[in-house]
Amino acid sequence: MADVTRELARFIVASRWGDIPRGIRHEAKRALLNWLGCALGGCNDVAVETVLAALREFAGPPQASVLGRRERLDFLNAALVNAIGSNVLDFDDTHLKTVIHPTVPVASALAALVEHRPATGAQFLHAFILGVETECRIGNAVSPEHYNAGWHITATCGVFGAAAACGKLLGLDERQMAWALGIAATQASGLTAMLGSMAKTYNMGHAARNGSLAALLAAKNFTSSERALEAPRGFAHVLSTRFDPAAITAGLGASWELAQNAYKPYPCGIVVHPVIDACLQLRGEHAVTAEAIERIELKVHPLVLKLTGNPNPRTGLEAKLSVQHCAAVAFILGAAGVGEFTDACANDPRAAALRVRVVAREDAAVGKDAAGVSVTLKGGAQYEAYVAHATGSLERPMSDADLEAKFRALVAWGFSTCNAYDVIELIWSFDNIRDAAALARTTVPAAAAAHAAS
Amino acid sequence: MADVTRELARFIVASRWGDIPRGIRHEAKRALLNWLGCALGGCNDVAVETVLAALREFAGPPQASVLGRRERLDFLNAALVNAIGSNVLDFDDTHLKTVIHPTVPVASALAALVEHRPATGAQFLHAFILGVETECRIGNAVSPEHYNAGWHITATCGVFGAAAACGKLLGLDERQMAWALGIAATQASGLTAMLGSMAKTYNMGHAARNGSLAALLAAKNFTSSERALEAPRGFAHVLSTRFDPAAITAGLGASWELAQNAYKPYPCGIVVHPVIDACLQLRGEHAVTAEAIERIELKVHPLVLKLTGNPNPRTGLEAKLSVQHCAAVAFILGAAGVGEFTDACANDPRAAALRVRVVAREDAAVGKDAAGVSVTLKGGAQYEAYVAHATGSLERPMSDADLEAKFRALVAWGFSTCNAYDVIELIWSFDNIRDAAALARTTVPAAAAAHAAS
Repeated sequence: MADVTRELARFIVASRWGDIPRGIRHEAKRALLNWLGCALGGCNDVAVETVLAALREFAGPPQASVLGRRERLDFLNAALVNAIGSNVLDFDDTHLKTVIHPTVPVASALAALVEHRPATGAQFLHAFILGVETECRIGNAVSPEHYNAGWHITATCGVFGAAAACGKLLGLDERQMAWALGIAATQASGLTAMLGSMAKTYNMGHAARNGSLAALLAAKNFTSSERALEAPRGFAHVLSTRFDPAAITAGLGASWELAQNAYKPYPCGIVVHPVIDACLQLRGEHAVTAEAIERIELKVHPLVLKLTGNPNPRTGLEAKLSVQHCAAVAFILGAAGVGEFTDACANDPRAAALRVRVVAREDAAVGKDAAGVSVTLKGGAQYEAYVAHATGSLERPMSDADLEAKFRALVAWGFSTCNAYDVIELIWSFDNIRDAAALARTTVPAAAAAHAAS
Repeated sequence: MADVTRELARFIVASRWGDIPRGIRHEAKRALLNWLGCALGGCNDVAVETVLAALREFAGPPQASVLGRRERLDFLNAALVNAIGSNVLDFDDTHLKTVIHPTVPVASALAALVEHRPATGAQFLHAFILGVETECRIGNAVSPEHYNAGWHITATCGVFGAAAACGKLLGLDERQMAWALGIAATQASGLTAMLGSMAKTYNMGHAARNGSLAALLAAKNFTSSERALEAPRGFAHVLSTRFDPAAITAGLGASWELAQNAYKPYPCGIVVHPVIDACLQLRGEHAVTAEAIERIELKVHPLVLKLTGNPNPRTGLEAKLSVQHCAAVAFILGAAGVGEFTDACANDPRAAALRVRVVAREDAAVGKDAAGVSVTLKGGAQYEAYVAHATGSLERPMSDADLEAKFRALVAWGFSTCNAYDVIELIWSFDNIRDAAALARTTVPAAAAAHAAS
């Protein structure tokens, strides 16, 4: 078998900023905007508070910010906490081919690293793009068997992404980069049995931190296998029954996985998204009020009911996997953002009353990102909408303006004091920024306050 | 399936010191003595120096000693470095049923923790015994398929051992202990593809650190799956094709895995040990000198040649897997300790000259821990020895005196300034020690110097 690990390392090391197409550079900024919004929305979550409570007394010097908060931690622990905070709302991006959430492990590591080891915005974006390329290609090579076996793929592949990105910024040579990938491989872990508990987001933090550490160790010539991906007892063969090495090496530099990245307009199960789109459309077009509704009929792909058929969710987490709840709140509140998936909203009597009026019917002819919705009013009027591709799908991606609106909503949700408009501007011009540390620093309350006062 | 994780957690939490049989308490001390010797012998290894160089600027407050060195690190990083140092010589203990090296991940974590959170010697020993019990039982439940698939079992199971032991000392309740095991499970990693590189010992450090962190997180109520071992997407099903849950829960408190622990008299491949025993015996009984030898004939189990048939090793690492080298140095130097497996010794012309006079013959009737050796002198005299069970096997364990001698040799090898006789005395009386932190502190050069001056 070809030296896959070495070939990938060579590509990462040799890549130049000028090689990156303009569209991919822009996509990287979109991914960062979406990720940073998630981080600011999630920065006060109980999982973040708890991990900080446990780590505080063991953390090193205050080298890097915790996004959206006043704490400063050593770079490795900051990477860990930032990855937890930016994933905890389940609102981060998705590489649909693998279901990797690519930005969290890579950007969380880089944002912390560049506060400690200065880099320009362009260097950050370049390392970020290579990190995403690395983790998604490795994911492609073992999908779908690897995830289906129970591996939390964002964690198991994300550790490679963080290692590659940090290694690029640290200026590793080819052999050191192969070692970084090897040290990442031997730390690859994360079980989907953790879904539904805090340990699920810990998987992200673990990947971001450990990938960073892999790069730091390799930079000091800490050795590993140089065939960690393809060796008989290496990552692919041990953690997957399928391995397609060409998925890692074919077309390196010619095709870019970031082009396959998708952003969620709603922080809930992705199969429900077209239903929400259709409900919001009907509410807007016909000024439908929840009180007037007799019945909501859904025509959906069979997976929707299998995964999200639950007319009686009792928690916010359950509400995210209830198509009935999603349809109800779209009509009641005209929204399906983080505020519509709290425990309080799941137990709102108005939502409960409307959820039971939702009738869902499977139709194998409906695509996975499509849905039909028909709403019948108590007076007898009936309106219909059909969504062929949900917002956020590759066929109908969220626009830059959509991503900006999502960012502003998340900033407000997390009670962040940073100026959302300034941060948005910073990200769109990030390739011209001299000090990439600005990304994390503008999110810190004290800095934001100082900025506002100046 | 029974709630295996919860049942194991319940046992760990409910166990009392008075429940531990006297023989197991003594075996725990033997394991600690063997482990601490390995740590002092390995504390200046290049892998330790390199990981310290990488971590130093990120480490937290000086809460715990690095064994045998002057550095102090935060407890988590100290656990990591200590595990690397105590494993790097390949001289640590072996739970033969699983090939787990049980003491490294557990004792490395505990020795660091008790410098930060005071505990008595008896509490340390108790937590240590429970940690070893946890990791070895989990190993038993997935062996041998788990290791055969490419998992470095000391790392993947050791993380549970460290979590259980630290969790016991931190006083976790049953639910928290289940979470600690869960957070350990989702961090379980380590590939045998790393054997032969520094990343192999990193696997140990990773396990010790991450298991410790799992306990700290659980103590703050960071949640995980409470069925992390047995869940469909949990540890056993994702990382093994075999899972025998009864191996974890049957006879808890009645049988103890430490009773199955073995210690190596020689820091090389275990299959070669009976050959070394026989060669040393012949050299001693008949005053055989290397120059007088015409031919050394070995009768060995077939695995010996398969794993260690190499008449021309070029490095110390290769010499550890050369039965010819082992036989040669036993006759030349009358020893097979760490000094006989350096690069220099592998390239010693006397060793090279005698290695080619070694003739090995497979014999399926010879047991794995047995060997026959016949040495023919140039004058024609011939002497024979047969070893039925190698020193260090369960049938012929190293005596306490053997372990003390090994400890003293390792202290000397690592240029440790600590007083070996004092440390040996400390360990044999460890159940009566008020402050378990003495274990690590007596190994620190400054402390040893201060002690000597008093």
